[in-house]
Amino acid sequence: MNRVITIGREFGSGGRELGRRLSEHLKFAYYDQEIISEISRRTALSEQYVQAIVEHQPSVSFPINIGRSFYPAPTPVFDQERSVYREQARIITEMAQKSDCVIVGRCGDYILREYKPLRIFVYADMQSKIKRCREKAPEEEKMTDKELKQCILGIDKKRAKYYQFYTGHKWGDRLNYDLCINTSGTVIKEVVPAVAKMFDE
Amino acid sequence: MNRVITIGREFGSGGRELGRRLSEHLKFAYYDQEIISEISRRTALSEQYVQAIVEHQPSVSFPINIGRSFYPAPTPVFDQERSVYREQARIITEMAQKSDCVIVGRCGDYILREYKPLRIFVYADMQSKIKRCREKAPEEEKMTDKELKQCILGIDKKRAKYYQFYTGHKWGDRLNYDLCINTSGTVIKEVVPAVAKMFDE
Repeated sequence: MNRVITIGREFGSGGRELGRRLSEHLKFAYYDQEIISEISRRTALSEQYVQAIVEHQPSVSFPINIGRSFYPAPTPVFDQERSVYREQARIITEMAQKSDCVIVGRCGDYILREYKPLRIFVYADMQSKIKRCREKAPEEEKMTDKELKQCILGIDKKRAKYYQFYTGHKWGDRLNYDLCINTSGTVIKEVVPAVAKMFDE
Repeated sequence: MNRVITIGREFGSGGRELGRRLSEHLKFAYYDQEIISEISRRTALSEQYVQAIVEHQPSVSFPINIGRSFYPAPTPVFDQERSVYREQARIITEMAQKSDCVIVGRCGDYILREYKPLRIFVYADMQSKIKRCREKAPEEEKMTDKELKQCILGIDKKRAKYYQFYTGHKWGDRLNYDLCINTSGTVIKEVVPAVAKMFDE
């Protein structure tokens, strides 16, 4: 059975970067945008729309099938979200069947539970998350710290709701993870070798 | 400045074993019973009594100065507990001044915060904790699982209260730790090299 690492993460904690670097270090596959493209291909929904759904954004204001010539009779938005989840789960499972891999977010820990993945949760204090967000997206510099904090909390709230809905478990609850890593004041690439070693044991 | 690792842990999670093995692996000092003996020596309280205080057990039923010839005028129990805490904090600080070390429990993360310790929290699911307790103390075999669970929860409740009282922080809250490790189904000695590597980075 292939080896799997799943990463849950607070927004701004650097969890995605940790996932990508871990996959490079361990020579595991890392899927991210590929998952979106594949869902889009299979469902004939636009990538933009799929992205919005998997990021748990309000979906009603998006055109559903931009750039697509055909989509079966419209279903209620909620059904569509569930279809996207199911398709995503199927794709993630296929990926894990294909090779060792790292999956960031997407309820990967739950979907791939039979693979006994190393389940990591990445978190940080608010100050570090604000700092990391500003470094990654300087265009957000117009936001005050207070606004950015609200934004970060809002995104995590959606992640928690999504995770709870599809897994029945509490997002971020340490018992759902093997390892919780605080990245406050941490340079992500420096912790990669140790985390990778955790997986070897 | 010497390097310090502190370990908070749920009862039955194997945190103490992890601390001891980490200290051996890294060739750091590991203090445990030595701290009790030293407090006893400095306060002229019996080791048994000191042990009971630092383990947050009800203290009134213990004779205070067994085997000691002298103890200054009795103070209320609560004052005594605070004196023991203060003495313990002083001893832990002296130990950290002396060499690299691993400190398990005892609010070590808070007392030694200026050393910027690697702060680890060790936890596990209830089933694993019950199993670990039974392996370590077969004499508890007469307790039912339910009784043992109550006992484990009770001890952790006391730890949480003690930690909160002396540090003002919430025990087990991930933001107070750098790394939280789930030891459910884990053989402690197998995770030691990875955790040690985490410290090297």
